[in-house]
Amino acid sequence: MGRVTERRKVIRIRDGAVSTRPDTLVAEEPLEIRLNGKPLAITMRTPGDDFALAAGFLVSEGVLGGAGDLQNILYCAGATADGANTYNVVDVQTAPGVVLPDITLERNVYTTSSCGLCGKASLDAVRTTARWPIDDTPPLRLAPELLAGLPDRLRAAQRVFDRTGGLHAAALFTEDGELLDIREDVGRHNAVDKLIGRALQNGQLPLSRTVLLVSGRASFELAQKAVMAGIPVLAAVSAPSSLAVDLAAETGLTLVGFLRGASMNVYAGEHRLALPAPAATG
Amino acid sequence: MGRVTERRKVIRIRDGAVSTRPDTLVAEEPLEIRLNGKPLAITMRTPGDDFALAAGFLVSEGVLGGAGDLQNILYCAGATADGANTYNVVDVQTAPGVVLPDITLERNVYTTSSCGLCGKASLDAVRTTARWPIDDTPPLRLAPELLAGLPDRLRAAQRVFDRTGGLHAAALFTEDGELLDIREDVGRHNAVDKLIGRALQNGQLPLSRTVLLVSGRASFELAQKAVMAGIPVLAAVSAPSSLAVDLAAETGLTLVGFLRGASMNVYAGEHRLALPAPAATG
Repeated sequence: MGRVTERRKVIRIRDGAVSTRPDTLVAEEPLEIRLNGKPLAITMRTPGDDFALAAGFLVSEGVLGGAGDLQNILYCAGATADGANTYNVVDVQTAPGVVLPDITLERNVYTTSSCGLCGKASLDAVRTTARWPIDDTPPLRLAPELLAGLPDRLRAAQRVFDRTGGLHAAALFTEDGELLDIREDVGRHNAVDKLIGRALQNGQLPLSRTVLLVSGRASFELAQKAVMAGIPVLAAVSAPSSLAVDLAAETGLTLVGFLRGASMNVYAGEHRLALPAPAATG
Repeated sequence: MGRVTERRKVIRIRDGAVSTRPDTLVAEEPLEIRLNGKPLAITMRTPGDDFALAAGFLVSEGVLGGAGDLQNILYCAGATADGANTYNVVDVQTAPGVVLPDITLERNVYTTSSCGLCGKASLDAVRTTARWPIDDTPPLRLAPELLAGLPDRLRAAQRVFDRTGGLHAAALFTEDGELLDIREDVGRHNAVDKLIGRALQNGQLPLSRTVLLVSGRASFELAQKAVMAGIPVLAAVSAPSSLAVDLAAETGLTLVGFLRGASMNVYAGEHRLALPAPAATG
C-alpha cells in the first residue's frame, strides 16, 4: 500500500539550464470497485485507503448508510501474469438485508428517465437518495474566522502534495476547527470518498456538525458526496459550479468557495455562518 | 448553447466586511453520450460544443478515427416535463462499416481480463487501440522557449476562466506555436475531448506536429487522449501522474509538466525538444 508516490527520472529546464534528476510523482492506478462480486465502477486513483475509497464511493451512490450495511471488503481477483495480486480490484460485500438500488455501471448515477436528463433531474436524484437531512440541532453557527484558518491547516497537514504537486486533498474538521481526518488522491472525488468511507468504517455517519474542505473546485459531484454523508458545510479553495450551488441551495448544504485567507464567497446555506448584516447590496 | 456561465447571488466576505452581489459561475450540466442509440456514458460538463465533446470522447475510446467514421450527431430524447429539449442527450451515429469495439458503460475502458487490472493493462489497452503511431516526419524539434510562451497565450485566449475561476482549459498549438484551437470545460477531460472532437469534425486527425497544452495536471486519461488523437506533445501547467509518464514513455509521447515561464520538467519523449546537453546529472 506504500505506492502513494513513485520515482521517475525527469529532465529539468530552468532558464535554459538543463539537468536530469529523479523526481517524485503521485502514483495513479486503476481501481475496480465490485459490489457483491459484480463490477460496478473503475476509477483512476492513488493507491492506499482502497477499502475506504470503495466504501465512501458506495455511500455517495446511496448503497451504504452505515457500518452495519457492510459485511466485508476485500481485495480479490486481479492477479498479474506471474500470479501477484495487483491490489486493484476491491469487492464490497453488503450485509444481509441491504437493499441494492438499481445502480448503473456509470461512475455517477443520474436518472435518464423520459422526463429528460437535466440538472434538475440530477438534483432530484440526490435529494431522493439522501439518507439523512442535515442535522443542525442545536443550530450550527460558524465564525468566518474559523473557516478562514482551515486552508492553511489543510496544507500543513498534507503529507504528499508539496512533494509532487499532483494531489487533491480533502479534510474534515469539527465545528470547532479541529482536524478530524485528511485524505489525498490524484482524483478529487476519490479524496472525498476516502474521507467518507473511513468515517463509515468508524461508525461516524452521518457526519453532522463537520466541515468538508477541498483543495480545488466544488463540482456537483463533491456537493453530492457531502450531502450523501450528512455533512452540513462544504468549503472549497476554488470556484463552485452552478449545479453545485443549486444542489446546495436545494438540500440546505452550506457552500463556501474561494476560501482564501479572510476572503470567501458564500453561495448557499449562509444561516450557518455568524455574519454581520451585509454592508452593501449590489 | 449559451450556457457556459450562469449567474447566482453570492455573499462576499472580505476581511470581515460582508456584501451581497451577483456572481458568474461556470455552468455544469450532465451530458449523456449515446452510440447508435445506446447509452454509453454520462459526463458532467459545461454546455456548449456538445457534438465535439461526444465525438472527441469516442476518439479517445477508439470508436472514431476520422470524420468518415461519423454519420451524424444529434440531440435526442431528453425533454423536460413541459416538452422542452434539455440538450443534454447526444446520439452519435457511426457510418456503415465502422466496427464497434466491445465498449463497456464505464467512462474509461480498461481491460479487466484474468491477467488482472493494473497500470500495465491500462497502458496495453491504449497501445493496442491507438490508430496511428505518432508521425514525426521530418523529426519534430521544439525549442523550450516556444513551449515556455504557450501558457501565457492559453490564459490570454481563455474567454471564461478569468470570470469564473472554475474552468479547465485545453489548447492546441502548431509546432510553430500558432494557436489552433482552445476549449474550456468544468471537467479537464471534457475540454480535451472538445478539442479533439472538433479536430475530427474538421478532418484534422491525426493531430500530427501539434502541442496539446492543458491548464492543470496531466493524468493518465489526458495522456491517453493525446495518444489516441495522434498528438506528439502533451504539456501541462501542473504535475503529471506516474501512469501518465509511463504511458508517454511507452507510446513515444513527449510529456512536459510544470510548464511555468522558462521552467519546465520533461518526463518523456525529450528527443522532440531542442535541448543542450545536461549540465549535471543527479
